[in-house]
Amino acid sequence: MISEHTKEIEKEFLEYVKKMQAYNEALGLIYWDLRTGAPKNGVDQRSEVVGMLSSEVFQMSTSEDMAAYIASLSGIEDLSEITKKTLNECQKDYDRNKKIPVKEFKEYVILQSKAESVWEEAREKADFEMFQPYLEKIVEFQKKFIGYWGYEGNKYNTLLDMYEPGITVEILDQVFAEVRDAIIPLVKKISDSSNKPDTSFIFKHFPKDKQKDFSLKILEQMGYDFNSGRLDETVHPFATGLNPGDVRVTTRYDEGDWRTAVFGTIHEGGHALYEQNISKKLIGTPLCDGTSMGIHESQSLFYENIVGRDFSFWKHNYNVLKEYADGQFDEINLNDFYRAINESKPSFIRIEADMLTYPLHIIIRYEIEKGIFNDEIEVKDLPQVWNDKYEKYLGIRPGNNAEGVLQDVHWSGGSFGYFPSYALGYMYAAQFKNAMLKELPNFDELLATGNLKPIKEWLTENIHQYGKLKKPLEILHDVTGEGLNAKYLIDYLTDKYTKVYNL
Amino acid sequence: MISEHTKEIEKEFLEYVKKMQAYNEALGLIYWDLRTGAPKNGVDQRSEVVGMLSSEVFQMSTSEDMAAYIASLSGIEDLSEITKKTLNECQKDYDRNKKIPVKEFKEYVILQSKAESVWEEAREKADFEMFQPYLEKIVEFQKKFIGYWGYEGNKYNTLLDMYEPGITVEILDQVFAEVRDAIIPLVKKISDSSNKPDTSFIFKHFPKDKQKDFSLKILEQMGYDFNSGRLDETVHPFATGLNPGDVRVTTRYDEGDWRTAVFGTIHEGGHALYEQNISKKLIGTPLCDGTSMGIHESQSLFYENIVGRDFSFWKHNYNVLKEYADGQFDEINLNDFYRAINESKPSFIRIEADMLTYPLHIIIRYEIEKGIFNDEIEVKDLPQVWNDKYEKYLGIRPGNNAEGVLQDVHWSGGSFGYFPSYALGYMYAAQFKNAMLKELPNFDELLATGNLKPIKEWLTENIHQYGKLKKPLEILHDVTGEGLNAKYLIDYLTDKYTKVYNL
Repeated sequence: MISEHTKEIEKEFLEYVKKMQAYNEALGLIYWDLRTGAPKNGVDQRSEVVGMLSSEVFQMSTSEDMAAYIASLSGIEDLSEITKKTLNECQKDYDRNKKIPVKEFKEYVILQSKAESVWEEAREKADFEMFQPYLEKIVEFQKKFIGYWGYEGNKYNTLLDMYEPGITVEILDQVFAEVRDAIIPLVKKISDSSNKPDTSFIFKHFPKDKQKDFSLKILEQMGYDFNSGRLDETVHPFATGLNPGDVRVTTRYDEGDWRTAVFGTIHEGGHALYEQNISKKLIGTPLCDGTSMGIHESQSLFYENIVGRDFSFWKHNYNVLKEYADGQFDEINLNDFYRAINESKPSFIRIEADMLTYPLHIIIRYEIEKGIFNDEIEVKDLPQVWNDKYEKYLGIRPGNNAEGVLQDVHWSGGSFGYFPSYALGYMYAAQFKNAMLKELPNFDELLATGNLKPIKEWLTENIHQYGKLKKPLEILHDVTGEGLNAKYLIDYLTDKYTKVYNL
Repeated sequence: MISEHTKEIEKEFLEYVKKMQAYNEALGLIYWDLRTGAPKNGVDQRSEVVGMLSSEVFQMSTSEDMAAYIASLSGIEDLSEITKKTLNECQKDYDRNKKIPVKEFKEYVILQSKAESVWEEAREKADFEMFQPYLEKIVEFQKKFIGYWGYEGNKYNTLLDMYEPGITVEILDQVFAEVRDAIIPLVKKISDSSNKPDTSFIFKHFPKDKQKDFSLKILEQMGYDFNSGRLDETVHPFATGLNPGDVRVTTRYDEGDWRTAVFGTIHEGGHALYEQNISKKLIGTPLCDGTSMGIHESQSLFYENIVGRDFSFWKHNYNVLKEYADGQFDEINLNDFYRAINESKPSFIRIEADMLTYPLHIIIRYEIEKGIFNDEIEVKDLPQVWNDKYEKYLGIRPGNNAEGVLQDVHWSGGSFGYFPSYALGYMYAAQFKNAMLKELPNFDELLATGNLKPIKEWLTENIHQYGKLKKPLEILHDVTGEGLNAKYLIDYLTDKYTKVYNL
């Protein structure tokens, strides 16, 4: 039994957390607004507002009040599951934020923002040496932080844990090696194949407003709730869940390549469905969020690729697409269309990679990051290491560092440990698909008839509703009965590309 | 000389105030978003966020910290003007909010929200008796509050002071009587005139996107800075200044009456120019705002009416309008167009009133509010009093209470003392016009050539830049050399409508 006193503290604690979430929601709206059309002259002052609200949230997360709540409520068995898991999240944040000396953290924040602007210029000039001293300092800080935070097994585990709790170097070494060793020969076979799809029709003019109408149509088909969201336009597409009743999606229109908007919208729509369908019971707590970067990415990749690049999906939607287009598909049959949107070709830039070579881009980054934090790779050697790996895995060598080691923003912001989520999401997605087939054996037929609702319902039932109530590997186990297993992604990719290229 | 200790307190105080302003800016963005397209399912949770942020600001405004700042800094002569006036604003808020017992204020807030929803239903049913008990309670609370706040001269002065500091019953009785007694015979003459403009062409179909393009064109002509703002669509148009670099305007499009969007946009654009041109030195303080409702309204009415309904303005813009329209003006010459957009006809609904009869709608409300707070009018008698005044001043008697006493939302929210601002703004605008003519004697020519920039610059120089650094009557005096004077508005209206109707 919980005492009246404890009940009172629990109530106060939940109220305190609710306030932090409210401030985060306000911040979320400000970010959305900044990216969708806030007048540029107001941005400086808006940044002040962002600063005030974020530092308030940060202070609340490390305050004496928070310490007292954690001390009073930890270990009390009879608290509700939501309270207990909320407490865990708060404690994790508290520990992470408190263990770094304030002075060092401030220095680090200043370095981050400096490093990001140096990186931008360095990338423009393809000049790694310009960026190198900043990256070295960032790495040095991160290593020191790992010292403060502690680690189990491998130093890099501490960084992985920030984005994908439960995932370790031990696990990744195994699954990434399997995926890598399966994809490399597949990519090679495709490169050698003479049976390449014609993609020229893709780049004909497709009016923006028609792309938008089609994107809206597909979002609707996916079961995206427009009473709980909206679609806007941005340079860099994203989805943002302000609360489950307000999950916004943005996309980018390229009139010379409709795939940008269509697959971008489906991808962000997948993220959005996750957030729209988190249980309302979790609103006002930090549990009202995707459980990890990897599980989040599993939802976007599931929709973008396993649904959106599937043959059955286009059985239904190719005719719809034709209605919106300006005749560019008139001479192209469904099979040729399908092959074109599944073209695979080694390329330098991760965010432009196709869905077969994509995991290799991630695995390269993983191997490099692990090497850095285990003192096996030095920052100064990165261009060489990077280019060697691209040549070895993808058979192409970057001509300069802009299309090589400088391409991603992540490291300039100190986001080490984040990249693996992208490939993890892909593996989770393939595992979920396999589990889904047992309960929805008519999966292909659902796609072929544009009836995607049962798919959304299955994902909601098994994944979405829980928010952060379940950890990523807990969800994976509950859904599939097993742990992380590379087999499903490998089978999926092998089967798919063997057919696309008649290998 | 200010001591180091005092300097430290001043710095802390300004930082404290800056945080309140930052939270207000976040709230401003949330309100804008709620009205321009926030998904409806997110609104409940967003209201929680609004509640959290507003109560934080309210608590800060009445906190012990605030009391200590006021106590430490009051009366120190050597503080900067900005600090001193910021302190005055904070003190005013503190006093107003602290004097009402917390319990009573909570009861009042609940009553307000209840009263507003009852009012909505009552207006729909034209049923005053349904609303009456709520209005009685609201009035009772307001009278009690006046007791707490105190008053000088007349109880109603305390309410006026909230919206228009410096304006009293003594002043209003005089100017409103003058305006009323000048307008009534003018309205009568127009009603009796057989020389009425033809307005039928106004209601022909005008496509929404063309109305938008024309509205944008006019905003640009006014000198509205699109790098510091944007135009969106809402049911109820408004302008909102989040900070001087981000002042947003909304409008409503009626394809059967283009005047709604065009004059609505010009009106809100006038408000927006004010906020865009407040001195950047005032950012982060409560002084970074319009100085009063009346001065704010003077800017919107100046643009909507003195500029936007002027003959010279249309000399330039009628041809522009024709380019956007679908031929509806082809047979109408400029003079007939001008007469049509200046048609005057007594009507029941304030917000639909023309610019000659409009002040009478306001004066009626003023006389009634003053009567209520001086215990000369009882709430139960309002429909009778209202209808009698409409008959006496405008020559028309409302057929029911929906087009009579129930038409405005203001009283259901306890906003007594607000209505006079609308007519005050009109008087200020006419006085400003007169002063402006001395420095810009080519005013008509500027309008006739679409060169509105010097007008904006004059208003910025004399009014906008000061924000709340100057009180309304201080601005009026500095600009015109005199106090509130009804003569200018009366002359303007008499001259204008005598010409429009060849009286």
